Amino acid sequence: MSDLAQSVVVMEVSPRDGLQNEPEILPTQAKLELIQGALDAGFRRIEVASFVHPSRVPQMADAEAVCHNLPQRGDVSYAGLVLNRRGYDRALATRRLQEIGMVVPASDTFGMRNQGQTVEQAMTVACEVLGAAARDGLGGSAIIAVAFGCPFEGDVARERVLDMAARLIDAGATELALADTIGVGVPSQVLDLFGSLRQRHPALPLRAHFHNTRNTGIANAFAALQVGVETLDASIGGIGGCPFAPQATGNIATEDLIYMLDRMQIGHEGELAAVLATGEWLSGALRKPLPSMLSRAGVFP
Amino acid sequence: MSDLAQSVVVMEVSPRDGLQNEPEILPTQAKLELIQGALDAGFRRIEVASFVHPSRVPQMADAEAVCHNLPQRGDVSYAGLVLNRRGYDRALATRRLQEIGMVVPASDTFGMRNQGQTVEQAMTVACEVLGAAARDGLGGSAIIAVAFGCPFEGDVARERVLDMAARLIDAGATELALADTIGVGVPSQVLDLFGSLRQRHPALPLRAHFHNTRNTGIANAFAALQVGVETLDASIGGIGGCPFAPQATGNIATEDLIYMLDRMQIGHEGELAAVLATGEWLSGALRKPLPSMLSRAGVFP
Repeated sequence: MSDLAQSVVVMEVSPRDGLQNEPEILPTQAKLELIQGALDAGFRRIEVASFVHPSRVPQMADAEAVCHNLPQRGDVSYAGLVLNRRGYDRALATRRLQEIGMVVPASDTFGMRNQGQTVEQAMTVACEVLGAAARDGLGGSAIIAVAFGCPFEGDVARERVLDMAARLIDAGATELALADTIGVGVPSQVLDLFGSLRQRHPALPLRAHFHNTRNTGIANAFAALQVGVETLDASIGGIGGCPFAPQATGNIATEDLIYMLDRMQIGHEGELAAVLATGEWLSGALRKPLPSMLSRAGVFP
Repeated sequence: MSDLAQSVVVMEVSPRDGLQNEPEILPTQAKLELIQGALDAGFRRIEVASFVHPSRVPQMADAEAVCHNLPQRGDVSYAGLVLNRRGYDRALATRRLQEIGMVVPASDTFGMRNQGQTVEQAMTVACEVLGAAARDGLGGSAIIAVAFGCPFEGDVARERVLDMAARLIDAGATELALADTIGVGVPSQVLDLFGSLRQRHPALPLRAHFHNTRNTGIANAFAALQVGVETLDASIGGIGGCPFAPQATGNIATEDLIYMLDRMQIGHEGELAAVLATGEWLSGALRKPLPSMLSRAGVFP
């Protein structure tokens, strides 16, 4: 217990990773309503869009329009996801984002399929983009995708992930995120990988991105709290799915994460009742029940 | 990592806690098929029935018939659940069980509604039954229900749970189980309660019974492994539900638990592919999709 974090930042990613993997494409206005719901619930770090080719990800084709209509306020960090220099330039040009997340795959096959880059190609681009972000005064998160396992190559060597992290940090990353993109990670991996990162880079903020595809997402979040990860991604309703497992659930649900945090008396932004209300609205907007378990079971006590 | 258990016993409880909370009542033969499936998958500790009044729990009305048809073999421990002396006498009379689980509620209101007993009344009965089991040569687990929270009274004081445990152990319990009957527990509670039990009763085998109602079940299982709990209950398919939250999911799914154990290289009985096959059969028998996430997402790698 003494090792558990006293507080954690919950980064709301439903407008990006959530909606990006939903078959239903929401209109820009509905995305802005979702972002407003997250703001009203108390979140201050929100991933609002990804800057990728609209023909590949039509759900994010209105990234600029979303950004230009974001409520401007000094206490929020809006993040945009990018895969390359072109995406970065688009994100920068909106002048509405406080930070970018630069994705680097941990396996060549995933990299080629997801973004047309090998690991090394993506690393080169990422180092350039992270340097640019530092010069442009934006926060620059390096996000290592499929860090816990690859749908094509299977296990990913921990040393590869740790080596990539070291290079990305050298290049100017202001935060290092490990993403369990396909939801295969287990808590012992979380303790191992994040524990090693913490040991090697004691001052660097760490962030974890988990999917609940195989029911380990909340357990992984708990493990991340045990090694002092500063930020946990979550999506309202647990939307997001996984493109490689069509029937599977998505990101860890914000409601479910916050329930656990509240009951463990760990400080965080985001108020459970407000999140549940936004989740109900989102379920209507997407016209389907969402994976969040809290929304079905109800709060306690 | 060094604290994690090297191995754990997975106790298959689908024939009892699973089926007891399903609206569909399976015929005796189907229950025996389920038990055979669990045996074939490699489980050696199986909760097969509860001995309660058939008018209250019609799903368990054939408890004796199930027991009389259990495959007799020397390497399996079949368990029956009891709430009182009459239930114990019925379980003993079958002569087919190696152990009983005696349930004691941690709150008066739950006790009155679940078994018509206050905590103190149930404690008196439990101490008598555990003594009888010891004399009769049966394993006697004491199971403290709603140990992590009560649907009627809310929070349950940890000292009450620990005091009850001490008395039950004095009375001859061969194992102490804490049950999160309604699925409200969080990992910090698991570390605290089981950690305290381990400290106070170093030699006593501990067992944890979690529900995944609010998505904390697998996280709780991971926490239990961190404090050396010897046995984890799970149900194939995650069947079981919760009588106090009709839309919620049930026990932690055996498939999901075993996936995590396999990936963490923690030894256990029960082979994942065989469990998945039995889960598919069970889904057909109950005529509905089951909550297990592994069955939808598939194994990895």
